[in-house]
Amino acid sequence: MAVTVLGLGEMGSALAAAFLAGGQRTAVWNRTPGRAEALVARGAVGSSSVEDAVAGADLVVVNVKGNEAARAVLASAGSLAGRVVVNLTDGTSSEARGLSAWVAARGARYVHGQIMTIAPAIGHPDSVVFYGGDEAAFNDHRGVLLLLGGRATFLGDDAGVPALFGMAMNGTMWGTLNGFLHAAALLSSQGVEVKRFVEAASASLTGLLGYLPSLAEEVDRGEHAVPFGALKHHLPAVDDLVRESRERGIDAGLPSYTSELVRAAVEAGHGDDSYSRLVERFRSAS
Amino acid sequence: MAVTVLGLGEMGSALAAAFLAGGQRTAVWNRTPGRAEALVARGAVGSSSVEDAVAGADLVVVNVKGNEAARAVLASAGSLAGRVVVNLTDGTSSEARGLSAWVAARGARYVHGQIMTIAPAIGHPDSVVFYGGDEAAFNDHRGVLLLLGGRATFLGDDAGVPALFGMAMNGTMWGTLNGFLHAAALLSSQGVEVKRFVEAASASLTGLLGYLPSLAEEVDRGEHAVPFGALKHHLPAVDDLVRESRERGIDAGLPSYTSELVRAAVEAGHGDDSYSRLVERFRSAS
Ligand SMILES: NC(=O)c1ccc[n+]([C@@H]2O[C@H](COP(=O)([O-])OP(=O)(O)OC[C@H]3O[C@@H](n4cnc5c(N)ncnc54)[C@H](OP(=O)(O)O)[C@@H]3O)[C@@H](O)[C@H]2O)c1
Ligand SMILES: NC(=O)c1ccc[n+]([C@@H]2O[C@H](COP(=O)([O-])OP(=O)(O)OC[C@H]3O[C@@H](n4cnc5c(N)ncnc54)[C@H](OP(=O)(O)O)[C@@H]3O)[C@@H](O)[C@H]2O)c1
Repeated sequence: MAVTVLGLGEMGSALAAAFLAGGQRTAVWNRTPGRAEALVARGAVGSSSVEDAVAGADLVVVNVKGNEAARAVLASAGSLAGRVVVNLTDGTSSEARGLSAWVAARGARYVHGQIMTIAPAIGHPDSVVFYGGDEAAFNDHRGVLLLLGGRATFLGDDAGVPALFGMAMNGTMWGTLNGFLHAAALLSSQGVEVKRFVEAASASLTGLLGYLPSLAEEVDRGEHAVPFGALKHHLPAVDDLVRESRERGIDAGLPSYTSELVRAAVEAGHGDDSYSRLVERFRSAS
Repeated sequence: MAVTVLGLGEMGSALAAAFLAGGQRTAVWNRTPGRAEALVARGAVGSSSVEDAVAGADLVVVNVKGNEAARAVLASAGSLAGRVVVNLTDGTSSEARGLSAWVAARGARYVHGQIMTIAPAIGHPDSVVFYGGDEAAFNDHRGVLLLLGGRATFLGDDAGVPALFGMAMNGTMWGTLNGFLHAAALLSSQGVEVKRFVEAASASLTGLLGYLPSLAEEVDRGEHAVPFGALKHHLPAVDDLVRESRERGIDAGLPSYTSELVRAAVEAGHGDDSYSRLVERFRSAS
C-alpha cells in the first residue's frame, strides 16, 4: 500500500512523519520544495510534481491552507481514478461536500477528515480525527489512518459532518476561552492568581461539561422546560458580573452580551425554561 | 450550637433542610411567613421576626435576593455581637467586602460563602461552596457548614474572593454555553443531532478544560509565547465558522466577535502568542 501526502506545512509534515514512524511507505509533495527535505531524510519519497507524487498512490492525503487550495492541488494530479482521497484541510461543511462530489466525478473515493488536535499530538493514541464520506474507503485504509491519531471516528456518509463537528467544537472552545479570559482579567485586576481560581473551580468546570448532554437533548427534542436552574435565575448573576466588570474598569461587553440574550428570552416569556432555550436566538441571523 | 437561617427562598429552604437533615437545631425566618411552614413541619423553629430568630443563634446564615436585602435583614436583627454571620447571598466582591466590614463593626465575625451549585444539590458530598473572611469563625463552624456541601473550601481572609470566583465561574460557564448553543443551532440546521456531537466531542471537550491551567499560568506570568497553537492559526478557523453561519442563516454575531478579537491581536503583532494574550483586550474597558 502506498500513501502520498500533499502539503507539508506544520500539520502536513506531522502527518507524513506519523506515517513514516508507523513504517508506512510515504511519498510527499509541497508547493515550496524545501519543506520536504527533513521528511526525505527520514525515508519519505520526494516528488517535484503532484502528478509524480500521486502516480503510484492508493491513498492520497491532502492537507493545505483552505479547500480552494486543496482542490487546485488535486486538479493538478492528473488521474485520480481508483484512488482514495482523504482531505484533512479545514473549511466549511459545504466546501467538504463540494470536494466530495468533485473527487467522485473523477472516479476516486472521497473521505473528509477533521483533525481535532494540534500538530505535535499527531500520532498519539488519544488524538481524535473525525472522518466522513465513503465508508468502504475509510475502512480499506483504517489501519493506516489510525497512525495519525488513535481515536479515528467515522461519522457517516455525509462528508460535511466532520467539518461541522470541528467548527462546533471550535465555537464551544472560543466561547469558553473568551469567558475564561474575561474572568482572568477580573481576577488579576484584584491581585488574585488565575491559577488559584482554576484549581478551586476544577470540580465546577467538570460539572459544566457534564451539563452539555442534557442541554443537547433539550435542543434535539425542542423541549426546554426545567424544574431548576431556569433562565430567569441567571439574570441577577449576569448583572453582578456586568457591575463587577464596570467597577474594576474591565471590559463589560461580554457579560453585557449574555445579559441581553438572557433578558430578551425572559421578556419573551421563557424565564422558566432551561438555558438551552437560547438556541432559538442563535437560529435567527442578525 | 444553634443555627438560624434568614431567607427561605428556593436556596434558603434547601440550606435549612440540609441543616435539619444533619440533625442540627435550626431556627428559620422568611419575610413572607408562609414559606417557613414546610420546614417547621420537619422540626425547624419558626420565628416571626429576625430579632427572635437570631436571639439564641451562634451561627446566622443569610440567603436572600441581593446583598442590599441581606444587609437590611441583618440590620433588623437587633444585636449581632458575638455571633458568626455566614452570608450566602450572591453579589459583587465589593458588596461582600462592604458587608464584612459592616458586620465586624457590629461585633460579629463575618464569613462570605459562594454557593457553586443549584438548590437540589445542597447537602451532597460533592457540592462546592467557597468561603472567605474570618478563618477562625469558619473553622469554628466547619462541621455544620459541611452539611451544606461536602466540598467546603476556605479561600482566605478576603471576603470578596468567593464572590469573585463565583462570577469567574459563571462567566466561563456563559461563554461555554453560548458557544455551544450557537454550535447547536448550526448542527440542528443541518439535521444533525446535537447529542451525537456531544458524544463524539467528549474527549475534545475534556481536553479543552485541561488547557485552562496553562492559560492561567500564562496570564499570571504575563508571558504569552507558545511553540504551537498560536493566535494566528485561529483566524482561518474562526472565519470558517463565520462563513458557515452566514451560509446557513444562523446568527454570525458570536463568531464575528471572536474573529474581531483575534484579528485585532494578530494585527497588533501578537499572532505568534497564545490565545491567553486576549486577556489584555478584556483588561481595557470598552
Ligand atoms: N497546525 C495545526 O496544529 C493544525 C491543527 C488542526 C488543523 N490544521 C489544519 O491543517 C491545514 C494545514 O495547516 P498548517 O498548520 O499545516 O498550515 P501551514 O503551516 O501554514 O502550511 C500551509 C500549507 O499549505 C500549503 N499551501 C497553501 N496554499 C497553497 C496553494 N494554493 N497550493 C498548494 N499548497 C498551498 C503551504 O505550502 P507552502 O509551503 O508552499 O506555502 C503549506 O504546505 C489547515 O487546514 C489547518 O487548519 C492545522
Ligand atoms: N436557587 C438556586 O439554585 C441558587 C443557586 C446559587 C445561588 N443562589 C443564590 O441564593 C440567593 C437566594 O436565591 P433563591 O434562588 O433562593 O431566590 P428566591 O427563591 O427568589 O428567594 C428569594 C428570597 O429572598 C427573600 N428576599 C428578597 N428580597 C428581600 C428583602 N428585601 N428582605 C428580606 N427578604 C428578601 C425572599 O423573601 P420572600 O419570600 O418574602 O420574597 C426569598 O426568601 C441568591 O443570592 C441566589 O443568587 C441560588
